[in-house]
Amino acid sequence: MLFANTPTPPYYAVIFTSQRTESDPTGYHTMADLMVELASKQPGFLGVESAREQSGLGITVSYWDSLDSIQQWKENLSHLKAQEKGKRDWYSSYITRICKVERDYTKSN
Amino acid sequence: MLFANTPTPPYYAVIFTSQRTESDPTGYHTMADLMVELASKQPGFLGVESAREQSGLGITVSYWDSLDSIQQWKENLSHLKAQEKGKRDWYSSYITRICKVERDYTKSN
Repeated sequence: MLFANTPTPPYYAVIFTSQRTESDPTGYHTMADLMVELASKQPGFLGVESAREQSGLGITVSYWDSLDSIQQWKENLSHLKAQEKGKRDWYSSYITRICKVERDYTKSN
Repeated sequence: MLFANTPTPPYYAVIFTSQRTESDPTGYHTMADLMVELASKQPGFLGVESAREQSGLGITVSYWDSLDSIQQWKENLSHLKAQEKGKRDWYSSYITRICKVERDYTKSN
């Protein structure tokens, strides 16, 4: 199951929509895996979901228990370095949206 | 540009994470295109972003001006039929999350 196993709302979501450049796919994937691993160890982390088209357009949504947890992760030193590299080399454009999840509903097999 | 050109927050987002079955790809794509076209004509629609992995895992985020607009779209008759077909044939599992976007930041080339 590649869905985040989030609790009953309310909780928070960071929607990161991005367009990858074609540069440095190996470095990018190594860093992306590392950041998921590191995020999952942060206080308040609830899960992450991610999909990317072959065209390079991708959406990653991470889930958190509070705005404070999101802010702490944003300021994590290793994450800051990854964000800088992302801005410079890996993404031609992106938009980050910080959201409060108010309700959810599901179908599971 | 395949990013939604959303206004200054607050506004609302519907995050739809889904796992596609392998059944009926042509019917699915035809309906998906039709639903985006129809959604874009609804009151309060602000935009949509979508990405799907080759594995079938996908994330679609639609943006709306209010919870009322989301509710109206959820109850649209053509959309209801598409949702039924999706539950039955096209998705093995999914989760829908209704969110309030509180802030955003961007990088554009």
